[in-house]
Amino acid sequence: MPSIVLSLSCPDRPGIVHGMTGLLVAHGGNITESQQYGDPDTGRFFLRIEADIPGDIGALQGPVDELARQFDGHIDLTEANRPIKTVIMGSTTSHCLTDLLYLQRMGRLPIEVTRVVSNHDRLRPIADFYGAPYTHIPFSKDRRAEAEAELMGIVEDTGAELIVLARYMQVLSPELCHRMAGSIINIHHSFLPSFKGARPYQQAHDRGVKIIGATAHYVSEDLDEGPIIEQDVERVSHALSAADLQAIGENVERRVLARAVKWHAEGRVLRNGERTVVFP
Amino acid sequence: MPSIVLSLSCPDRPGIVHGMTGLLVAHGGNITESQQYGDPDTGRFFLRIEADIPGDIGALQGPVDELARQFDGHIDLTEANRPIKTVIMGSTTSHCLTDLLYLQRMGRLPIEVTRVVSNHDRLRPIADFYGAPYTHIPFSKDRRAEAEAELMGIVEDTGAELIVLARYMQVLSPELCHRMAGSIINIHHSFLPSFKGARPYQQAHDRGVKIIGATAHYVSEDLDEGPIIEQDVERVSHALSAADLQAIGENVERRVLARAVKWHAEGRVLRNGERTVVFP
Amino acid sequence: MPSIVLSLSCPDRPGIVHGMTGLLVAHGGNITESQQYGDPDTGRFFLRIEADIPGDIGALQGPVDELARQFDGHIDLTEANRPIKTVIMGSTTSHCLTDLLYLQRMGRLPIEVTRVVSNHDRLRPIADFYGAPYTHIPFSKDRRAEAEAELMGIVEDTGAELIVLARYMQVLSPELCHRMAGSIINIHHSFLPSFKGARPYQQAHDRGVKIIGATAHYVSEDLDEGPIIEQDVERVSHALSAADLQAIGENVERRVLARAVKWHAEGRVLRNGERTVVFP
Amino acid sequence: MPSIVLSLSCPDRPGIVHGMTGLLVAHGGNITESQQYGDPDTGRFFLRIEADIPGDIGALQGPVDELARQFDGHIDLTEANRPIKTVIMGSTTSHCLTDLLYLQRMGRLPIEVTRVVSNHDRLRPIADFYGAPYTHIPFSKDRRAEAEAELMGIVEDTGAELIVLARYMQVLSPELCHRMAGSIINIHHSFLPSFKGARPYQQAHDRGVKIIGATAHYVSEDLDEGPIIEQDVERVSHALSAADLQAIGENVERRVLARAVKWHAEGRVLRNGERTVVFP
Repeated sequence: MPSIVLSLSCPDRPGIVHGMTGLLVAHGGNITESQQYGDPDTGRFFLRIEADIPGDIGALQGPVDELARQFDGHIDLTEANRPIKTVIMGSTTSHCLTDLLYLQRMGRLPIEVTRVVSNHDRLRPIADFYGAPYTHIPFSKDRRAEAEAELMGIVEDTGAELIVLARYMQVLSPELCHRMAGSIINIHHSFLPSFKGARPYQQAHDRGVKIIGATAHYVSEDLDEGPIIEQDVERVSHALSAADLQAIGENVERRVLARAVKWHAEGRVLRNGERTVVFP
Repeated sequence: MPSIVLSLSCPDRPGIVHGMTGLLVAHGGNITESQQYGDPDTGRFFLRIEADIPGDIGALQGPVDELARQFDGHIDLTEANRPIKTVIMGSTTSHCLTDLLYLQRMGRLPIEVTRVVSNHDRLRPIADFYGAPYTHIPFSKDRRAEAEAELMGIVEDTGAELIVLARYMQVLSPELCHRMAGSIINIHHSFLPSFKGARPYQQAHDRGVKIIGATAHYVSEDLDEGPIIEQDVERVSHALSAADLQAIGENVERRVLARAVKWHAEGRVLRNGERTVVFP
Repeated sequence: MPSIVLSLSCPDRPGIVHGMTGLLVAHGGNITESQQYGDPDTGRFFLRIEADIPGDIGALQGPVDELARQFDGHIDLTEANRPIKTVIMGSTTSHCLTDLLYLQRMGRLPIEVTRVVSNHDRLRPIADFYGAPYTHIPFSKDRRAEAEAELMGIVEDTGAELIVLARYMQVLSPELCHRMAGSIINIHHSFLPSFKGARPYQQAHDRGVKIIGATAHYVSEDLDEGPIIEQDVERVSHALSAADLQAIGENVERRVLARAVKWHAEGRVLRNGERTVVFP
Repeated sequence: MPSIVLSLSCPDRPGIVHGMTGLLVAHGGNITESQQYGDPDTGRFFLRIEADIPGDIGALQGPVDELARQFDGHIDLTEANRPIKTVIMGSTTSHCLTDLLYLQRMGRLPIEVTRVVSNHDRLRPIADFYGAPYTHIPFSKDRRAEAEAELMGIVEDTGAELIVLARYMQVLSPELCHRMAGSIINIHHSFLPSFKGARPYQQAHDRGVKIIGATAHYVSEDLDEGPIIEQDVERVSHALSAADLQAIGENVERRVLARAVKWHAEGRVLRNGERTVVFP
């Protein structure tokens, strides 16, 4: 029996869960997982349901759209475990890219890597090893428009639904951020909102913090500012150099980014203004 | 508007959430929090709903009972934030008792401490300070029956719904465990199932573990074996003595026990055979 | 046999440990614990030694001073486990004060609380229960000088070596900070350098962070900026309100502050410019 | 200037550090890192020193041996950052092998992989990608002697100093364990001493633990029993299946094993009977 994921975001009011589950009951569905959250601050309601459904999933689309209209909200209906078409972007450091490709290969990440894109050519052997097509798009300030046009061409040609910035070291244009809003995930190498900007491990070292971290977030037009998806940390001590912090930090970065991509791909992350609702 | 908590446990089948939410919709209720889990191994389904309900809560009891019959399960209906009448038992160490009384006083734990019971008289000043009545029930092997009878008398007289063993160092009889099954929480001073039995910090030290922990669990007739509610850990090093591990461990114990008691009192812990479902 | 703690900070160069251990060998001492760190960035060297010494500790003072001159540094010589005379300051919230007094009572914190000082009278019963003398020093902007003079009078009269700001909500004057530099520990209710200033849990909630923390640091003249001693964190989720974050955060605050005070009192924290060296 | 690591283990007595540092001073050395520990239970003393030494390291060997005799102990003298010749063994799962090879390639692990050995042929492409020679040694009960002889031949031919069992699923013979004692590191997929033996994630799931972990340890003749080097954990919930626990656990396993191998290769792990002393 096929499985589906329904993700709903709408203004909170009585009857939403009852309506949604009624639709499933009417189609013979059986809920296998469900999580919900009503935000008292914003008055928004969020619901994620996984269900087994007999017969054709397509038949649900009409009733689901009707329900979305009725609740004045937005409902995503997708097949469960469908691999999300993903472009991964990197620059020169390989730890995040390697981990995403490895976990995808092992069946731990429900994504399909339609292209690895980099402004350098250094990561190509890794992509080759994991069988991911690789495109080198040189980047410089005076050819940013062409570079982004080429990137968007790849996104469109490959039907990519998600861009993952796996330590990609260039800033995307506001237009691109806006166009792919909610579909670009970045890993920032600090525990945001601490140590924004460049060289966060050096900053952390200079400040003498006892714990370092990493933050996966959706990219908004403000650099290092979009909605946070996941964070994690590790204890450190005075005895570690900035380079040591970086080596430890890279391990934190790759696990935080992998979790964020997994949860996004499984429809577990819903936008709530400048925050996220995560149903892990 | 009053708030309620509904906790359901029943065999899994389609339509449960729809039925439960339908009942709330029919009574004008609005769900503020809801979590559910279907266990594929046991085929059991678990649901916890918090909702605002206009009018008299009592009017819901009939329909709720009817629904429980229909789903062949068990539904608890209680007022949200109702303080759970609790007997806390201790022996000589004070860290868990002190923390529970402190957190209760601060409004952080929805319990009402109807009695502190101890087989020693040493903890009385702490109970006095926090205004909790204290009963010293001397315990020895040849008066176990009397001691337990006295304890059960207190439980009954004060209407206690929960017994918390806050480092109480005597074993309860199988009869008492059975009679209060699911209503006795113990803190074990190790990360179960490691280091059962006596002197777990010495055991942990001898084994050279790098992390120590504590476990809050429901008491079953097998000592140190009931369903686990919560665990937490802290890193340690070779340089720490067994006494150091104990000092660190006591901090872990008190926070693990406090969380377990809070979650139990809020109806967030449901029994699932030898395991628990926790909706934190 | 008495135990001593030697803490050394000086410019790094060959022979320091050899010189220090030579002094101990010459006096029949036996090292029971030793940690050291040379900071490649600042060229400073840090050493902490615990040793058993036969006979009179006072006889060591001369040779220790001589060694300090030779190394152009600073050496603290104290009896191990000597309780550090401490003034604890609070305002209205009790969790940090309660924990410090409790841990001191249990023999877990080598401090002697010479006075609890507050700008309110609300915490008096807690101090009374733990037998700590309490002074209420009303504070307002136009009597800051008198209030601080009264505080300094207490510090001097009781021989206090340490001031702990246990959620004390007033800013100390630059003069006082300067006078007691390295001897005032504050707990900040966020994971610094994130969320400085007021209402950090509300800030953390608004920013949607997935982990919250607390920071114990020495007080410098820049508010929320002195050298960090200890930090810790706890995972949180979107479902928690700012008030929930605060309740969880208070538990983090009290354990972070207790660790920082313990390590300071045991001579395990050495200043390294704007950073600390901690030998836990 | 070359750097060295000195690791000492001997009966505790006054003068050890003074003697060791005296030797370094006499040879113009400068200590850059030093950690020590005296075990009050066993009376053993442990010391690790990193130092810069002008001139030939070989000239130190004689005085070091003399000092070892004097202290009735054992001193290892090695060049700092010398890659430790290592044989990695795996079976069919790739996460630990992949991570070790990746981290070695990135300069994060001071090992030289002289051979990847497996009782299957499945991991060969990974070894090929990272340029590590691969030998498939089929294993069955009736050819265990030949298989181990072949393995020992590889160890000897390649001068391997360390064997890492990266989820190698066969039991080594007592003879081999004894011969390479202290030089075989295993990763056990549970938080030992919990859940020894097969299928620990299933066991953890059945027991309903709230935290899972992994343990890196030296291999002794008792399976799953040798001295623990490192452990780490991750929180889990009732909602995760045994397969989910395994996926999360694999991430814990690889980081625990990588840390243990790094610390061993850097001479930071000293045996202390059935325990270890780790100077991270």
